[in-house]
Amino acid sequence: MKLSPLVQELIDSLKCLPGVGPKSAQRMAFHLLERNRIGGQKLATTLATAMEDVGYCKGCRTFTELDYCEICQSPKRQLKRMLCVVESPADILAIEQTGEFTGRYFVLMGHLSPIDGIGPDELGLDKLAVLLASDEFDEMILATNPTVEGEATAHFIADIAKKYNVSSTRIAHGVPVGGELEFVDGNTLSHAFSGRKSF
Amino acid sequence: MKLSPLVQELIDSLKCLPGVGPKSAQRMAFHLLERNRIGGQKLATTLATAMEDVGYCKGCRTFTELDYCEICQSPKRQLKRMLCVVESPADILAIEQTGEFTGRYFVLMGHLSPIDGIGPDELGLDKLAVLLASDEFDEMILATNPTVEGEATAHFIADIAKKYNVSSTRIAHGVPVGGELEFVDGNTLSHAFSGRKSF
Ligand SMILES: [Zn+2]
Ligand SMILES: [Zn+2]
Repeated sequence: MKLSPLVQELIDSLKCLPGVGPKSAQRMAFHLLERNRIGGQKLATTLATAMEDVGYCKGCRTFTELDYCEICQSPKRQLKRMLCVVESPADILAIEQTGEFTGRYFVLMGHLSPIDGIGPDELGLDKLAVLLASDEFDEMILATNPTVEGEATAHFIADIAKKYNVSSTRIAHGVPVGGELEFVDGNTLSHAFSGRKSF
Repeated sequence: MKLSPLVQELIDSLKCLPGVGPKSAQRMAFHLLERNRIGGQKLATTLATAMEDVGYCKGCRTFTELDYCEICQSPKRQLKRMLCVVESPADILAIEQTGEFTGRYFVLMGHLSPIDGIGPDELGLDKLAVLLASDEFDEMILATNPTVEGEATAHFIADIAKKYNVSSTRIAHGVPVGGELEFVDGNTLSHAFSGRKSF
């Protein structure tokens, strides 16, 4: 080892970040040491606080250090009587950027995956049932990922919604806008045809 | 803003890392919050300690929390009576990996750049002069980058060495091993021709 123990430890710790291998970790460590110690110190403090204090919204389960997130707290959002179920907090950001949906969310933090021990409890479906029973929603949009697991999870949750007389919808599958038909996979193309709409 | 203040702050702080834009920062933050809080806490602690404690080797100026780095402390390295001058600590690692050089190093932490206010003092050339005057070295290899600034810096330092009767050499420029001639730039190719050796 040609690096001092502390510098090597810093490089190793940086490898906990997704997409960061030994080479990038080294580059990051040297960059901070050489050019941005203030930034590195700020990151250390924020990281420590965030890992300790960020929990889950009592309403939708997204990440927040508050009891309820901004969206769950908004009276405007309540009025919409619509609930969008997603797999992760990143999905909320993607949907919010479209401006297409102005109701509330529920974050599963994953999808059903019996092999990994992820069942209804892990996805907070008991909490979702309470929301559905509250008579605050007319429609639940299932926006889980268009994967086998996401589809299975969507179907499972739609069944729960039936009990509470909340209608379930699934986001449309089809050809991505701007994509070339030639490069779209067969399964997506099938969905695009079966889901066709009249002009 | 749809994220809680602390989560947003975490994402912003992660952007101080080189090569990390808003999207990667978000992915990193969510990854740590969701799957690796222990890793995040470890990183926070190490980062805080490293930013505070890592300084510069009193011998070669590389990063270390010790007074002298491992290489400077090694008696074997002293015996070689060779000094290799590099621009950054990362260069030491690259050279050490080749196993080609077993002497000592001197790290400039940059190159001469008058516009940026980087002159001989900033590169520790007074310290380098003390080393050259110590009669510990027979040869100094200038391994600064093969850029205009790296070349200028190498020449400047070679002039200093003359005063102390230490011979200076420059690492060879030429066609990278394994590269295709077709894709080598003209300047490199010129160097490869003028620096040709007989079989
Ligand atoms: Zn919420
Ligand atoms: Zn040293």
